[in-house]
Amino acid sequence: MNPRITELQKQAAGRSDVIGLAGGLPADELMPRTELARALAEVTAHRDEALQYGWPEGDESLRAWIARRLTARGATVDPERVIITSGAQQALALVGAACRGERISVGSETYPAAIAAFRQAGAAVVVTGGDAAYVMPGVGNPHGVDQIEPHRLRWLAEKTLIVDEAYSELRFDGQIARPLLADAPERVWHIGTFSKSVSPGLRVGWLIPPAREHDSIVDIKSAMDLQTASLTQLAIRRLLATLDYDALLAKARGFYQERAAVLGQALHDEVPGIRFTVPEGGFAIWIDTNDDGDDVALLEACIAAGVCMDPSSVFRPRGAAGPVAMRACFSNTAPDQLVEGARRFATALERWRRDR
Amino acid sequence: MNPRITELQKQAAGRSDVIGLAGGLPADELMPRTELARALAEVTAHRDEALQYGWPEGDESLRAWIARRLTARGATVDPERVIITSGAQQALALVGAACRGERISVGSETYPAAIAAFRQAGAAVVVTGGDAAYVMPGVGNPHGVDQIEPHRLRWLAEKTLIVDEAYSELRFDGQIARPLLADAPERVWHIGTFSKSVSPGLRVGWLIPPAREHDSIVDIKSAMDLQTASLTQLAIRRLLATLDYDALLAKARGFYQERAAVLGQALHDEVPGIRFTVPEGGFAIWIDTNDDGDDVALLEACIAAGVCMDPSSVFRPRGAAGPVAMRACFSNTAPDQLVEGARRFATALERWRRDR
Repeated sequence: MNPRITELQKQAAGRSDVIGLAGGLPADELMPRTELARALAEVTAHRDEALQYGWPEGDESLRAWIARRLTARGATVDPERVIITSGAQQALALVGAACRGERISVGSETYPAAIAAFRQAGAAVVVTGGDAAYVMPGVGNPHGVDQIEPHRLRWLAEKTLIVDEAYSELRFDGQIARPLLADAPERVWHIGTFSKSVSPGLRVGWLIPPAREHDSIVDIKSAMDLQTASLTQLAIRRLLATLDYDALLAKARGFYQERAAVLGQALHDEVPGIRFTVPEGGFAIWIDTNDDGDDVALLEACIAAGVCMDPSSVFRPRGAAGPVAMRACFSNTAPDQLVEGARRFATALERWRRDR
Repeated sequence: MNPRITELQKQAAGRSDVIGLAGGLPADELMPRTELARALAEVTAHRDEALQYGWPEGDESLRAWIARRLTARGATVDPERVIITSGAQQALALVGAACRGERISVGSETYPAAIAAFRQAGAAVVVTGGDAAYVMPGVGNPHGVDQIEPHRLRWLAEKTLIVDEAYSELRFDGQIARPLLADAPERVWHIGTFSKSVSPGLRVGWLIPPAREHDSIVDIKSAMDLQTASLTQLAIRRLLATLDYDALLAKARGFYQERAAVLGQALHDEVPGIRFTVPEGGFAIWIDTNDDGDDVALLEACIAAGVCMDPSSVFRPRGAAGPVAMRACFSNTAPDQLVEGARRFATALERWRRDR
C-alpha cells in the first residue's frame, strides 16, 4: 500500500468535516449490538472457556455451525475441516503461507489486503495465469458485481481456487450460489467471515483448506497467533443460537441496496463524465473517471473538497494509476451525506481534471 | 511440534480423570470476570468503535497506557511506537517476519511457540550465536527462573534482543527489573501481553519494535489480520480505567507462589530421583528426571497414570529428548489435585524407568 494514501486517508478519517466513503465499513446501525452485548455477558459470566486458552482450530460448536451452513448450500463439509481464523484476512494470510513461492492470480483489480496478505506470506501476485486463482463469488470487491458465477465452469477448471465469500451472502437479490467448494472440494480454499454481517471488530472468520493441507495450516495458524480469541468465538456462537442469522442478512441486503441506490442516483445526477455499474451487492460502487492520471492527486482533491474514497491503484496488483477510478462505499454513511459526498466528488473531479 | 504429543495432550485434555498440568493456563479464578463483563457491556453499548474496523496499530488509548507503564519503569516510550498485537504470539510472528532469513538464538530450552513462530516466519532458530537473541527477563519459560537480569550487561551487548516479558511481572518477589528496552531502545523488540494477567481468551498483547522498523511491522501486521479485535482492545482499556492493575498482579503473584509451593513440596515428598529448581515466578516447575530416554513414552506413562504435562523435547530447538525433563504447571490446578498429580507422576516415572 502506498504510504501516502494511508496517510491521507488516516488524516481524513480524523476530520469530522470530511465525508468518509473509504474503507468498506459495515453500517454501525445494522450490528446486533444488544444481542451481542447479551451474548458477551452470558459467556463471560458462565463459560470459563470464554476467557481461557483454546485450541488453534477454534471452538468446536462454531466450526459445526459453519459446516452445517455450507452443507445446507450443497457443500458437504466435515466440521473437523473448518479452521476459525482471526477474520478473513488471516485466512488469506494462511493461504498465502501455503502458497509461498507460487503465483496467485487476482485479476486486474481486487481486494487490496488480499494482495498484501499473499505478498507478505511470500507468494507472488499476478494478474492472470497463476498456480492458484483468487476469486470473490457473488459480489466482487471492488466492482460490486459477480464476475465468477457467470463463468463457473471456466473457474472450476482452475488448478487451485482461493474462494473468498466475504460478501457472497450480501447480494441484493438474495441469490446465493452453490459454493465452489461443493464442486471441487480438493482444489478449493474456502474463506468466510462474520465481519460484514455481525461485526468486524470481533475478528472472526474461517478457512476450509483442502483436506490434505488441514494439519499443516493448523500448525501455521498456531504459530501466527495461537488461536482466535475464545471470547469473540463463543460470543458469536451464542449469538447465533438466539438470533435469526438469515433474517439479519436479509435486513442487511435491503438496507445496503437502498444505500446503493441513493449513491448511484446521486452520482448519476451530480457527477459528469464518469461511468459506473450498479452494484449487485456489497458495500461500494466502482467509479471510472474515464481519465488517465494520478489517482493520489485525485484523492487529495477529494479530501480538499470534503470527501474521502479509495483510489484505484490500491486495488491493482501492478499499482498502476491510470485509467483512474475510485471506490466509493455507501455502507456506513447516511443517505443525505451520500448525496453531499457525490457533489463534493464532482467538485474534486473538476478541479483535478483542470489541474492535470 | 511433534504431532504425537499434540494428539496425546488433546486426548488427555478431554478426559476428566486426567489431572492437567500441561499448557500454561492462568487460573480461571483469578480472571477479573465481573469487571470484564461490565467493561464489555459498556463498550459494546456505548462505543461504535468497539464493533467497527480500527487501524492496524491498535487503539490509541490502550497504546498510551502501555507506553506510560513502560515509561514509569524507566523506558521512555512514545505511544506512537506501540503496536497492539493478537496476543504476544503474534508479536513473535511479526519479529520472525522481520528476521526472515536470519538466525535467532533461543538457548537450549525455551517457549515452544516462539520456536514455531520464528521458523514459520522464515527465520532459523539456533541455540547460541544468532543474529538476534530471544530472552524472557524476570521469569523464563520453561525454567521459571530469571536467566537474564543476573547477566544483564552481557545480554545488552547482543546485536538485537527479542525481549518477551510475558511473565516478567509475575515474579513472586515482585522485583520487576528495568526493561531492557530502556538501555537499548534501538536494538530491542519489546513484547508484552495481558494473557497471563487478565485473560488469554481476549488475545491482546503488544510489540514495540525498534523505531526504524515500526512502519514496515504495521504493514506486516495489517497483512496478517488487519488489526487486533477492536472489542477486546476497548474492553481491556475500559477495564484498566476501573481496576487496579498492580493490585491484580500482586494478588496473582501471591496466588501462584502458594500453588508453586504446594507442587514443589509434593514433588519433593512424592517423587524420588528427580531434580527441580523452586521457580521465581510464573506458572510452572521444570522437572529433570536425571534420565536419558524417550519423553513421549514418559508422557504416555503419565497420561496412563492420570496426569498430563509438557515433555522436554517441545522446548528444545533441536527437539532432542534426553536428558528427559517435564514441565508441570501449577497455575490452574487446585492444591489437592497438584498433590495427587505429583503422586501419579511418581507412578508414571517408575513404570517408564522400568520399561525403558
